[in-house]
Amino acid sequence: QQQHRRGRARTECRIQSLSAREPTYKFDSEAGTTEFWDRNNEEFECAGVAAVRNVIQPQGLLLPHYNNAPQLLYIVQGSGLLGTVIPGCAETYESPQRERSMRGEESREGESQFRTGGDQHQKVRQFRQGDVLALPAGVTLWFYNNGQQRLVTVALLDTSNPANQLDLQFRHFFLAGNPNPRGQSGSRYEEEIRGRREQEQGEQQQQRCQTGNLFDGFDQNLLADVFNVDPELVRNLQGREDQRGRIIRVERFDVLSPEFEEREEQRPSREREGRRGSQPNGLEETICTMRLRENLGRPSRADVYNPRGGRISTLNSHNLPILNWLQLSAERGVLYQNAIMAPYWNMNAHSILYILRGSGRIQVVGDTGNSVFNDEVREGQMLIVPQNFAVVKRAGNQGLDYIAFKTNDQAMTSPLAGRLSAIRAMPEEVLMNSYQISRQEARSLKYNREEATVFAGRRSGGYST
Amino acid sequence: QQQHRRGRARTECRIQSLSAREPTYKFDSEAGTTEFWDRNNEEFECAGVAAVRNVIQPQGLLLPHYNNAPQLLYIVQGSGLLGTVIPGCAETYESPQRERSMRGEESREGESQFRTGGDQHQKVRQFRQGDVLALPAGVTLWFYNNGQQRLVTVALLDTSNPANQLDLQFRHFFLAGNPNPRGQSGSRYEEEIRGRREQEQGEQQQQRCQTGNLFDGFDQNLLADVFNVDPELVRNLQGREDQRGRIIRVERFDVLSPEFEEREEQRPSREREGRRGSQPNGLEETICTMRLRENLGRPSRADVYNPRGGRISTLNSHNLPILNWLQLSAERGVLYQNAIMAPYWNMNAHSILYILRGSGRIQVVGDTGNSVFNDEVREGQMLIVPQNFAVVKRAGNQGLDYIAFKTNDQAMTSPLAGRLSAIRAMPEEVLMNSYQISRQEARSLKYNREEATVFAGRRSGGYST
Amino acid sequence: QQQHRRGRARTECRIQSLSAREPTYKFDSEAGTTEFWDRNNEEFECAGVAAVRNVIQPQGLLLPHYNNAPQLLYIVQGSGLLGTVIPGCAETYESPQRERSMRGEESREGESQFRTGGDQHQKVRQFRQGDVLALPAGVTLWFYNNGQQRLVTVALLDTSNPANQLDLQFRHFFLAGNPNPRGQSGSRYEEEIRGRREQEQGEQQQQRCQTGNLFDGFDQNLLADVFNVDPELVRNLQGREDQRGRIIRVERFDVLSPEFEEREEQRPSREREGRRGSQPNGLEETICTMRLRENLGRPSRADVYNPRGGRISTLNSHNLPILNWLQLSAERGVLYQNAIMAPYWNMNAHSILYILRGSGRIQVVGDTGNSVFNDEVREGQMLIVPQNFAVVKRAGNQGLDYIAFKTNDQAMTSPLAGRLSAIRAMPEEVLMNSYQISRQEARSLKYNREEATVFAGRRSGGYST
Repeated sequence: QQQHRRGRARTECRIQSLSAREPTYKFDSEAGTTEFWDRNNEEFECAGVAAVRNVIQPQGLLLPHYNNAPQLLYIVQGSGLLGTVIPGCAETYESPQRERSMRGEESREGESQFRTGGDQHQKVRQFRQGDVLALPAGVTLWFYNNGQQRLVTVALLDTSNPANQLDLQFRHFFLAGNPNPRGQSGSRYEEEIRGRREQEQGEQQQQRCQTGNLFDGFDQNLLADVFNVDPELVRNLQGREDQRGRIIRVERFDVLSPEFEEREEQRPSREREGRRGSQPNGLEETICTMRLRENLGRPSRADVYNPRGGRISTLNSHNLPILNWLQLSAERGVLYQNAIMAPYWNMNAHSILYILRGSGRIQVVGDTGNSVFNDEVREGQMLIVPQNFAVVKRAGNQGLDYIAFKTNDQAMTSPLAGRLSAIRAMPEEVLMNSYQISRQEARSLKYNREEATVFAGRRSGGYST
Repeated sequence: QQQHRRGRARTECRIQSLSAREPTYKFDSEAGTTEFWDRNNEEFECAGVAAVRNVIQPQGLLLPHYNNAPQLLYIVQGSGLLGTVIPGCAETYESPQRERSMRGEESREGESQFRTGGDQHQKVRQFRQGDVLALPAGVTLWFYNNGQQRLVTVALLDTSNPANQLDLQFRHFFLAGNPNPRGQSGSRYEEEIRGRREQEQGEQQQQRCQTGNLFDGFDQNLLADVFNVDPELVRNLQGREDQRGRIIRVERFDVLSPEFEEREEQRPSREREGRRGSQPNGLEETICTMRLRENLGRPSRADVYNPRGGRISTLNSHNLPILNWLQLSAERGVLYQNAIMAPYWNMNAHSILYILRGSGRIQVVGDTGNSVFNDEVREGQMLIVPQNFAVVKRAGNQGLDYIAFKTNDQAMTSPLAGRLSAIRAMPEEVLMNSYQISRQEARSLKYNREEATVFAGRRSGGYST
Repeated sequence: QQQHRRGRARTECRIQSLSAREPTYKFDSEAGTTEFWDRNNEEFECAGVAAVRNVIQPQGLLLPHYNNAPQLLYIVQGSGLLGTVIPGCAETYESPQRERSMRGEESREGESQFRTGGDQHQKVRQFRQGDVLALPAGVTLWFYNNGQQRLVTVALLDTSNPANQLDLQFRHFFLAGNPNPRGQSGSRYEEEIRGRREQEQGEQQQQRCQTGNLFDGFDQNLLADVFNVDPELVRNLQGREDQRGRIIRVERFDVLSPEFEEREEQRPSREREGRRGSQPNGLEETICTMRLRENLGRPSRADVYNPRGGRISTLNSHNLPILNWLQLSAERGVLYQNAIMAPYWNMNAHSILYILRGSGRIQVVGDTGNSVFNDEVREGQMLIVPQNFAVVKRAGNQGLDYIAFKTNDQAMTSPLAGRLSAIRAMPEEVLMNSYQISRQEARSLKYNREEATVFAGRRSGGYST
């Protein structure tokens, strides 16, 4: 199941200073916007990742596409439907109501090629605020906002994952629409993509340089033959005239989806159902019915909880097995007013922090004891903390909520203070001599904080920058 | 068993256009030729692979050597013997007839060092046209053409495999002969190798610059001591005067090999035999008796079969377990006249196509909808289709046979059309809105092609280039 | 448990010639010295490793630190204590005696924050000459020399291991002291580190440029809050004034440690003890109680033994399971006077040789038959033999002891001569024709050396260089 292909890009991690960053490129569509973080800075290069934020209006549909990298996607706000297409999995969702109404139509029109019966398609998943979605590379995805408010998602794309055998460039492959139509909101990102396409096409096709979907690159008559349809219909597949962008408005979207339920894992019957009638393939056992979603928003999900400090929920391959395949994990943190997350280092992963709400101060220290980040962070910013670098977070007066994406499916941290800390795990003699302090002082370092990793705030502010 | 060491080369996949390529370098030997594809072009660099084609005359022996990369080797034509040397495996092939005749000789000459008895050596495998051989890195190999016609093999060498901890340069290490003797057929490849050796040796040994086998680099007297033989015999090991090249003629080659049988897996008794008396080591359980060969040429082997379109046979770690170790797989396709292989993308692998017979048109499309290949291909050409790029193949009037090597032991494809396609797996509502088409048109896209992945040809030609 | 993240550095292996190298940088501390091999030469770059040698005086403590790369550490001389801190593992070592004496003190001083009872800390391991220690990346380590003689350790750090997601730069992260104080023994290494820090800090902090420990980079008041201690005590944590370096003298070091026992694996009761009361986490089953140590020095440990030639002891993930996680292994060789280690190549690993005692001649040959090393080696030198390159070792008059670190947890070698050799495993017909020799000569190559891989020396010297 796992892919162990070596990566192939050179990265450097000579981090001089980190920045908490907003997205750099913005791309507007008919029913939403897509924002990209600039990967051409040293911490994104070091971590080998990309990040995207989508805002999808109610009734907005993010067109079917796949990526060259696996992603973890966090639902910051709103709710919606996720469609995935995994080859070899069966179309297990059937719509009997429509079947009846459609059968009439069909028999009237006599299109014998049509399957009698309603629509059939692969599993569709409902998601909502606080969910993490784990999405493999190469799998076709679409998202629909069937809620009342804007749907906001932020995704980490692990371009240096072994699942990606291309270079570190992050790539969308769209199956529909015209993802970057000319004349639509001239963003820097759009220009970059268009520039790349122009350069790649060179002189021979200078006159036609908008980027299109996958079908656009194939011959129209060949596609008509392939689909056994009229060539005119192929023009719709190719979508050259489509000006709606990546996110389109769909006012009546009648897709079958199960009632929203609290936790998919409580529904064992559905798990089995997915297997019925599927094409056998190597991934069928693991993928077709695999859980892709877990909610980290609910307070009761907390793995670490300090009523005076806050809570931490972790998601790794133990509680969401597909993460073993993606080699990614996540941590959701809620720090109350002035609370402190104990300083620690990530032992085996980079950590990509996205601030969901509130603000706070974060300090990051590198291997020579140098401070590489010491600043306020606020909602909507992203901060990459490289592996092994030490980090401390302190919430501001409004508290601090964050999601951290980690580049290891079993990311481990090693705290420097608190009940689980390295200081506490070492003999007093080591502390006394290392720090030239008395036994009593060594004991105060080991035992004055009995809290695990989330500490209640005591003083407010006053730290030098 | 698996090696998960990171690769170490930087590759770029800014593919502007692909080419169907013939080998670039040719090297003639006494009893055959060796051809190499040039790795210094963008698609070979992106995929991190090398490719070699050998033509071995009847009675030709490709000298013992090992490579720094695992390979999949396809027998395009002919048949022969494969010898492998896996350290720690026992010499389980014994020749009793020769034993008797030799015993006489020996006792006459009184060479007490000689083992009484016949020759003993490790397992030798018979192979024939249509076989795929899966060959690990670092394992000594020799090939002998014991058939009546030319033996033609084409091999993919995965230099970016984690099994190779050297750089992406593909390297042969010969145990015998003088693989690139001076004056023999001055090919570009030969010049390249010689140039590298001259550069590496610098000024100190300017006068002696042909490349030799491994023994050539050791001190002659030390080797005499190591083998406990006369130094004159070591000169033969070193082979400096040998002008025969890599493939030599051996008119009487009396090597013990079992009768050719259809499938090795039908012979459980041999499997067990391999274990007897072997030196215990970590690989003994898995390697000494592991199946390295599977025939993909027989029509009955097909995994996908459409009597009007053709057939596909796939080989992965489920049916040939050693591929789990090599992280490679293969697919053999036979498309009948004008048949179409449904457009698809490789989800988790690069695909390296070699055309075995016939001709056809192939179109490849990249992430911005750009056409990177749209051309006729013919027998003997190689085309690399990068991961995630979409590809469609259409056989010409003579049909199209190919072998595809894939850089993942469980390579998966996602078709864009046909019964297993992404289009069919999506709800009608998604298609209708994405492509701005009617429900009826959506149904025609989903259901007008009931074939799985190999489609019968309908029209002949007429596609624009 | 395994981390399969792709590496990210480009290395080249265009090896023209290898060198047997001494350490390049030396750094003196209060109670010992630290030496680094220069990584900026082609063989270290090709192998993607770093190497460090520590000499710790009796009563010397190497301060707590962690690395960005897993390491294999060989105890060349002396004995000592190893402390590790693995987050989530319990403090299972308790000191009852001190508990009583301390309780008096405490009650007198009335520090209510103090835990009543003695010191508690994580497991401490005794080690001695001949031990290999397998140490994961990111785990806090300290070493104490509790013996009578100097403790000498040599370590291979695998910076290209998938466990390291940073670049190939090897990094120490110290939790205490001031690892490179200004004014202390101006070595080149120190200058390099200081130069890097100065460059990273740029203009803003020009005035304060010594390198410090991790705490030095955090705000003093924030740390006081984090530890709930007086800010003055934080100054000791930060250690800015500390001039003792990395290895400090501790005259009375009263750390609880079990009696030294021959083999940890003979003590199953302790293994279980480690689990009691530990924090549950994903690694708890594997790491908290995992064996990190094995002695390769004892003659009885030999895996290969030739009374006239010497012995070889191998350590891999079969006999030390943590090596499966580290993807490293080791081999300890003792060659007697003039004995020869059969020529062989490493099939799936680089081999990093460190000469422990004696001297000898080593020859290394590359893929074009070119000699890349042919020289005497002696105690204290390191030689990197790249994967697939062939190597032969011949001990001098005093014999030759070495430790070889290998970059694969199940490193395999393929000998060119002797009872396990490729020559012996091939049919006589192949040898006769490849080397143009008689059947009798082929038999002498196959059978004249009946020894496995360590050959008794016959002649003394006389090999050309």
